[in-house]
Amino acid sequence: MGWTLAEIASKIGAELIGDADKVITGVGTLQNATADDISFLANSKYRHYLKDTTAGCVIVSPADAAEVSTNALVIADTYVAYAKTAALLYPEEHNEAAIHPTAVIGPNTLIADSSNIAAHVVIGADVVIGENVNIGPGCIVENGVVIGADSRLVANVTLCRKVRIGQRVKIHPGVVIGADGFGIANDKGRWLKIPQVGSVVIGNDVEIGANTTIDRGAIDDTIISDGVKLDNQIQIGHNCTVGEHTVIAGCVGIAGSTRIGANCAIGGGTGIAGHIEIVDGVQLTGMSMVTKSITVAGTYSSGIPIEPTREWHRNVIRYRQLDKLHDKVRQLESQLK
Amino acid sequence: MGWTLAEIASKIGAELIGDADKVITGVGTLQNATADDISFLANSKYRHYLKDTTAGCVIVSPADAAEVSTNALVIADTYVAYAKTAALLYPEEHNEAAIHPTAVIGPNTLIADSSNIAAHVVIGADVVIGENVNIGPGCIVENGVVIGADSRLVANVTLCRKVRIGQRVKIHPGVVIGADGFGIANDKGRWLKIPQVGSVVIGNDVEIGANTTIDRGAIDDTIISDGVKLDNQIQIGHNCTVGEHTVIAGCVGIAGSTRIGANCAIGGGTGIAGHIEIVDGVQLTGMSMVTKSITVAGTYSSGIPIEPTREWHRNVIRYRQLDKLHDKVRQLESQLK
Amino acid sequence: MGWTLAEIASKIGAELIGDADKVITGVGTLQNATADDISFLANSKYRHYLKDTTAGCVIVSPADAAEVSTNALVIADTYVAYAKTAALLYPEEHNEAAIHPTAVIGPNTLIADSSNIAAHVVIGADVVIGENVNIGPGCIVENGVVIGADSRLVANVTLCRKVRIGQRVKIHPGVVIGADGFGIANDKGRWLKIPQVGSVVIGNDVEIGANTTIDRGAIDDTIISDGVKLDNQIQIGHNCTVGEHTVIAGCVGIAGSTRIGANCAIGGGTGIAGHIEIVDGVQLTGMSMVTKSITVAGTYSSGIPIEPTREWHRNVIRYRQLDKLHDKVRQLESQLK
Repeated sequence: MGWTLAEIASKIGAELIGDADKVITGVGTLQNATADDISFLANSKYRHYLKDTTAGCVIVSPADAAEVSTNALVIADTYVAYAKTAALLYPEEHNEAAIHPTAVIGPNTLIADSSNIAAHVVIGADVVIGENVNIGPGCIVENGVVIGADSRLVANVTLCRKVRIGQRVKIHPGVVIGADGFGIANDKGRWLKIPQVGSVVIGNDVEIGANTTIDRGAIDDTIISDGVKLDNQIQIGHNCTVGEHTVIAGCVGIAGSTRIGANCAIGGGTGIAGHIEIVDGVQLTGMSMVTKSITVAGTYSSGIPIEPTREWHRNVIRYRQLDKLHDKVRQLESQLK
Repeated sequence: MGWTLAEIASKIGAELIGDADKVITGVGTLQNATADDISFLANSKYRHYLKDTTAGCVIVSPADAAEVSTNALVIADTYVAYAKTAALLYPEEHNEAAIHPTAVIGPNTLIADSSNIAAHVVIGADVVIGENVNIGPGCIVENGVVIGADSRLVANVTLCRKVRIGQRVKIHPGVVIGADGFGIANDKGRWLKIPQVGSVVIGNDVEIGANTTIDRGAIDDTIISDGVKLDNQIQIGHNCTVGEHTVIAGCVGIAGSTRIGANCAIGGGTGIAGHIEIVDGVQLTGMSMVTKSITVAGTYSSGIPIEPTREWHRNVIRYRQLDKLHDKVRQLESQLK
Repeated sequence: MGWTLAEIASKIGAELIGDADKVITGVGTLQNATADDISFLANSKYRHYLKDTTAGCVIVSPADAAEVSTNALVIADTYVAYAKTAALLYPEEHNEAAIHPTAVIGPNTLIADSSNIAAHVVIGADVVIGENVNIGPGCIVENGVVIGADSRLVANVTLCRKVRIGQRVKIHPGVVIGADGFGIANDKGRWLKIPQVGSVVIGNDVEIGANTTIDRGAIDDTIISDGVKLDNQIQIGHNCTVGEHTVIAGCVGIAGSTRIGANCAIGGGTGIAGHIEIVDGVQLTGMSMVTKSITVAGTYSSGIPIEPTREWHRNVIRYRQLDKLHDKVRQLESQLK
């Protein structure tokens, strides 16, 4: 179970310097790889490991090729090349077609013969499950859900009623898709629930990290477009739209009805207000606080990094006096005129 | 399965302008509604959609009634009226009374005949489940739990031992109520666990969003009062109290032993320190950082919204120099005296 | 089922003032304890409750002993003494050895005879489960997982393939350990998944709070060291290392490949960037934003606490003008020279 360097070179389009017949069976870091592992250098910070690496081969850029003491695969984008190589060596596992006898499946549900339904899964009525789908143990799939071909629910995933999942979607444990959005109206001090009658539509090639939640729309649907990658513990409110190939890091919260463009990158811990719009190509660094629409592509940030607690105390006090400080400076200016 | 406009007008107390016999079967947005849907206008931003809407009826305020090109239900609070209308059209589903054969139920447990226990549910010993309760698939209800009438655990919910849930409570997937609070004591560098022997008490008419966690008390109970509405991914520490009709948006974290008053509204991503008190009627905007008690009702905020990253870098540096800037201004002042 | 005060005094090493034969059966707060409960005073704020407490005994420091109107156990560190006493009175429950008939267990899996596997558990192939382990209802344990003796998965926990759990580890509901790390490479606008082939190693005496997620490593393992205590809803990225006896409060997010030292204390809601290092003995107050390595032990903070919203608005505007303000002050200085 491995690939020769010649095969890998051909598959990823790299130039091979070294033993074309060498068989590679796994990956490793420059520091810890074995002689049968392939490694890579994407961050020049680790360049000094090249000389002594025990890896069977290293994927490097042309600039670093001369430093490699073992076999080398030379290519411009080493990280993409590594991704492709690792995908060859560790293909996404697909369980054999089967429905576990403990799975409970409702009426009018269609499950492709090639799919695998694991133990203690509960699937409701009127569900459609495509070819080569894996529904891992403990998953709950409510009535009317549709899951496209080659998708995988790892374990303990909950898909609420009528949610639609595209093809090649991977959903990690603890994810909840299609729970009611947070819609309430205040009727003389008491909160009335607003029925959430929209759904959630997840495109193709989406990945959704552990314990992330995506709420169903109040009236229309919440939409996650093709190629979106979501990390863990993200909360996406009802009626949000996330554009194609946008990536969102962990612990991000997005309030309802916000539209995020395509090819955005949202740093971890960011909070985004509801009912705003973010154009394509926006990058937000970690812990950003977004309260208004962003109309111009680019990189945005907020938050003040840590200081020693004593200095922080002092600066917080000064911050609260900012308005007075402004007044003082204005006074000084007028005195000097 | 629908309601005539006359019936809806009567139920919600609105004035009907148009066809009293028109049957409405669903809801839709002004832009996407069909001729059998009812829509509403709560935000004047969307007023321009009124003229061309394809909805069968629109709920509007008296000020907007003249703009409506179709049937209209006229009422002051259109959002509350919409909530009531949608609740008529989409009543909370109640499964038929039944206990699924795969459900595992412990000794001395009482389940009202009208309740529904879904597949792969596990219910412990000494549990009491009231009338018309729905326990969705994959839920775990530990020993000694009490669940009031008309409550619903959607799916994959975990209620730990002795947790008490009121009536008409809706709990979304992935919620964990009654896990151990974070109680530890440092014994010469090692952390000793403090047994968490209190419980959690949830009042009536509470809703709890997906993947929210509410810890059990260390000694006394953690309390969520009647009418509280919690969004997704909220963390409530041990021995907190949340007052009646308070609403909390997603991703809020509340440390232990904090008391939050009634009729508060807490924005998403807010963090609240432990052992403090927040009076009734406090509003916190999103991503607020609360480190001390709030003794006066009102609206509070913190956090600095995003800027382009370059400007952010510059302002962060200036922020760190705030103390020095103050000193300089003071010097200038004394020079000028 | 209780302990005499003489027994408790001896077990925790306290001096007893009062009735040695008095039997204690539970714990209570100073305000609510019954005559059979023991209470404690750790925070001088509650000192005034000592005189009227109805507790059967109070654990107090020598300085407070004279104030106690009931039996007293006198000891320097009252909180540690309380932790030990409560652990005597409420020992961690251990279910009788058994495998529930609804549990599904894969081939080549070894489960110690003394362990308890609850209802609707799914355990994969090649799993090893040590002595006195409790796997609560609804837990999923994937192929190749190892769980050390005396550990407990409370309920609905997911352990992904090959994760290794130490001894005396307690994992609360909704926890996901070993989901794929967030590894993606951008190939001309599309994101390629990087297979996550490392695992997660959890040491001994670790506690992990509800709905916390710990991702598996990209190549090497993610490591949580002995004695670490994690609160709820924490996200730990792939290839992080958390040092011994470090405690992390709720809602903290740690990006990938970050190394956190031993004996650190990280406040709730803190965000920590990836690929950085935090030395031993660092304390971070709540909602800290950590973007760079911390090389010196000590206490660090960030974030600006709430103000009334109007003042906040004004200060945010002033903050954005900080750079200009600096320039003005510099100008004033040069004018005065």
